[in-house]
Amino acid sequence: MDTTTPRSRAQRRLDTERRLAGDVDLWVASASADGVPYLIPLSFDWDGEALLLATPADSPTGRNLASTRTVRLGLGETRDVTMIEGDVEVLAIDALAPEQADRFAARTGFDPRALTTPYRWFRVLPRRIQAWREVDELSGRELMRDGRWTA
Amino acid sequence: MDTTTPRSRAQRRLDTERRLAGDVDLWVASASADGVPYLIPLSFDWDGEALLLATPADSPTGRNLASTRTVRLGLGETRDVTMIEGDVEVLAIDALAPEQADRFAARTGFDPRALTTPYRWFRVLPRRIQAWREVDELSGRELMRDGRWTA
Repeated sequence: MDTTTPRSRAQRRLDTERRLAGDVDLWVASASADGVPYLIPLSFDWDGEALLLATPADSPTGRNLASTRTVRLGLGETRDVTMIEGDVEVLAIDALAPEQADRFAARTGFDPRALTTPYRWFRVLPRRIQAWREVDELSGRELMRDGRWTA
Repeated sequence: MDTTTPRSRAQRRLDTERRLAGDVDLWVASASADGVPYLIPLSFDWDGEALLLATPADSPTGRNLASTRTVRLGLGETRDVTMIEGDVEVLAIDALAPEQADRFAARTGFDPRALTTPYRWFRVLPRRIQAWREVDELSGRELMRDGRWTA
C-alpha cells in the first residue's frame, strides 16, 4: 500500500465503502443536551444507506442519541479514518424487520433482542463523511455533504 | 497474549500506563455547550499526571474544550480500549514551559508553536479511567475514580 501519495477522493470513497461493508466496530461520539461528551466503541451494520447500532436505552449513549438525534462516528484507525456525522432514528428493539436484526446479529456476533437489559436500535443516516490518513490528505477529505456523495 | 481470560485490574492499569507512556494518537470526543458531539483523532503526550493535546483554537474541538472544559478520550483500539474522562485546562500556545512543548513535538512529530494557524494547548487531567477488551472485561473496568487510581 502506497502511503506516501494522497489518495484520490474516488479511492477514499471506495476505501470508506469497503469499511462500511466489512468492519465490525467503530467509535460512537454523542453528547448530552447540555454538552457533556460521551464516547464508546460499538459494533455496527451497514445496509448501503444507513448504519445500524444497538445499545442499552438507559446507557449514556442511548440517552444522548435519543435526546439529541445526532452522532459523530469514527471508522477505522487514528491514521486512516472515516468520520461520519449523521442523523439518528430511534427504534424500539422489536420495531426492526427480523431479517435486518438477524443480519446485525450475524455480522456483529451479538443479538440485542436476546438480552434482558432493554436495548434500542439506532439507525444513523450519514449527512457528512470525511476520510483521511495523514496531514497530506486533509485537503479533499470531504466525501459526502448534506447526505449526498460528492466523490 | 492470552485474550481468553479477563485481565486483572492491576494488569489493566499497567497496560493503560504503557499506552499513556508510549502511544502517539487517541480519539478525542468533545461537545458544544448545546449538545453537538464532535470526534477527531489527535496526538498526545503524557507527563505521568496529565495528557497534553494541541489543536487549533478555532476548530470544533478547540472551541468545545474551551467552552465546556470536559473531554472523553479513547485510547487504543475498539476491542482493547482505555476510556478517559477528564477536566480540561486551556493554555495559550506560548504559556507552556518550552521543555514540555519540545517533548510534545519530539513524541508526536509536530510542533504547534511553529504553525501559522493559531493553536492552543489543552491539558487533560483524568478524573475517571476505564479499560476493557471484550464483554468479559466489562466487570472491573473502572481503574480511576475522582482522579485517584483504584487499581
